[in-house]
Amino acid sequence: MNRKLKTKIYFTCGPSQLYPTVKKHLKEAMDSDILSISHRSPQFQKIYQSLINNLKKLLNLPEDFHIFFLSSSLESIERIIQNCVAKYSFHFVNGAFSKKFYQAAIDLKKNPQLYEVGGGYGFDLKKVEIPKKTEVICLTHNETSTGVAIPVQFINQLPAQAPSSLIAVDMVSSAPYPSLDYKKIDLAFFSTQKGFGLPAGLSVMLVNEKALNKARFLEKKGFITGSHHRFISLLKKEQIFQTPETPNVLAIYLLNKVCEDMLKKGIKTIRKEIEEKAKLLYNFFDNHRYFKPFVKDPQFRSKTTIVIDVKEKAKEIVSKLASWGFILSLGYGSFKDSQIRISNFPAHSINDVKKLIKSMELL
Amino acid sequence: MNRKLKTKIYFTCGPSQLYPTVKKHLKEAMDSDILSISHRSPQFQKIYQSLINNLKKLLNLPEDFHIFFLSSSLESIERIIQNCVAKYSFHFVNGAFSKKFYQAAIDLKKNPQLYEVGGGYGFDLKKVEIPKKTEVICLTHNETSTGVAIPVQFINQLPAQAPSSLIAVDMVSSAPYPSLDYKKIDLAFFSTQKGFGLPAGLSVMLVNEKALNKARFLEKKGFITGSHHRFISLLKKEQIFQTPETPNVLAIYLLNKVCEDMLKKGIKTIRKEIEEKAKLLYNFFDNHRYFKPFVKDPQFRSKTTIVIDVKEKAKEIVSKLASWGFILSLGYGSFKDSQIRISNFPAHSINDVKKLIKSMELL
Repeated sequence: MNRKLKTKIYFTCGPSQLYPTVKKHLKEAMDSDILSISHRSPQFQKIYQSLINNLKKLLNLPEDFHIFFLSSSLESIERIIQNCVAKYSFHFVNGAFSKKFYQAAIDLKKNPQLYEVGGGYGFDLKKVEIPKKTEVICLTHNETSTGVAIPVQFINQLPAQAPSSLIAVDMVSSAPYPSLDYKKIDLAFFSTQKGFGLPAGLSVMLVNEKALNKARFLEKKGFITGSHHRFISLLKKEQIFQTPETPNVLAIYLLNKVCEDMLKKGIKTIRKEIEEKAKLLYNFFDNHRYFKPFVKDPQFRSKTTIVIDVKEKAKEIVSKLASWGFILSLGYGSFKDSQIRISNFPAHSINDVKKLIKSMELL
Repeated sequence: MNRKLKTKIYFTCGPSQLYPTVKKHLKEAMDSDILSISHRSPQFQKIYQSLINNLKKLLNLPEDFHIFFLSSSLESIERIIQNCVAKYSFHFVNGAFSKKFYQAAIDLKKNPQLYEVGGGYGFDLKKVEIPKKTEVICLTHNETSTGVAIPVQFINQLPAQAPSSLIAVDMVSSAPYPSLDYKKIDLAFFSTQKGFGLPAGLSVMLVNEKALNKARFLEKKGFITGSHHRFISLLKKEQIFQTPETPNVLAIYLLNKVCEDMLKKGIKTIRKEIEEKAKLLYNFFDNHRYFKPFVKDPQFRSKTTIVIDVKEKAKEIVSKLASWGFILSLGYGSFKDSQIRISNFPAHSINDVKKLIKSMELL
């Protein structure tokens, strides 16, 4: 039986499968000169303004949140540390990406603290003491390297534990899935090439007034907060729906279009489908003879990036599935031989996931 | 007579007219999954490697130059100051963009010096004294805000004047036109949405070993040089044809394709055509009854961004030409009512420029 797909499906952790409408929007962008318009034109300003409105609706953001564009989530991390930390950040670390947040604070000569658990594990808030002097609590909602997601409830408990700290959430590989309560956090960021199913090259940062005030305070005290991408420089331009630099206009245009499409579909439906697909995948592997989910505790299992222990057969499996048209990620870093990673984003249909499972039954 | 073009031509200073092959390449990118491939895949590495080879050929870069990707030229400016300046940069300033380079050094708490002349004027090296302690000399080859270009000969004389300083050249709105002698400079950068006729969202930085050694020295001394985009972090990934972050893969792919096309056409032909088109435009305005080139001294006239004094009629002219399909830029900043700006990039054919001039005859 020929199992080969007519068109490849990318189950990689990002860049990944394009949201189904992206190619149509890209063709329209080409035809309507979006690739040539000025970033200072009313046409661009309308796109930025529309995107703010659409993202606020989609994510249920409070009114005092601002939306800034950066080039990558590593840049978002850098700008948060520069603009909100004089000295003390606190990091929940359970994998390579949360570690990068911590490392950026070291690179920028801050004095970060961390609470680290092993790969594949979540955190127990009862076991953590967040120092009182903490200026920003940094956490990675979905650790792409290990497939661990932090329950939203955990995030919601943080303000009570550390009322004077800002809370910054890396939601790079989970947005727009988690239904965060943005009244409980101050900063968040994601990239377009993951859950939004877009080409890579844009990070979106959500920043509230409390975080902006911290940036203003640090500037008054003489701290270096960056140059063109200082929060206050980003804010000044955001007020007129522009960016300090010439931005990735195409990505901003496409993100706005995909947000519109997601609003039409409804965020509830999108979230429900992600949960349904995650259930299919975890059920399959929980019942598999050889291959098992890396994250044992169901409450910490990521719904959007699913990591499976495959007993040193990762390359063989990924290569076999690729020959059938299913593109998956190998494990991250030292797990590249022993694990595979499967993304479960809004771009993946239930049918796509069923087809993948059917193929994996043959492995 | 109906002067209206069937398809608009963008003579804006960037984003601007797409290079004629871009839409074809973009369609191919869509069909070949470039928008979904991993930035850690061999497929991406091949693109990066190919782009290094093609850019080195096109610009005639010495072997010791490295090619890094940043998100905008304002970011390139920031990274140069962070990685090469402990305290003293020196800036040739003659407009808004060279001023931004100077301002970034102030934002980053350095102690920059400047030699400033009025808008529309070039520099006289005999009148400048570059302080001995200068670590980096920063200059903007083509000042997009005023239409002044620095002659290549001027840049070539700098090393003799300041043998121990690094030389950094902003060639944002002139590359690949100027035939720089890269043995005389250490850093240069440009953006894709200008002379390369591509969508916005990528800056390319050229860095030699001398500049990298300065970054290494500053890191040893404990200076903050950034986080993911420290020169040494960029270098480490460039060695394996990758980037520290998930980059704008599409822009990198398209830039490589356009470099291939430009190599086929030949850089000499491209440069000759730009000079021919610039001559047509300057001749037209030198002989115009009312409208005159802003830059009086021909040796300082930009070939790629041409600024014209139009006696407070800028909006009227730009709007009239737009109604015929020719999209031009208004003057920059305080010149927005009194000047128009016309780009002359490789994407503009001689015929495009002739059509524009014919239409301007009717104004």
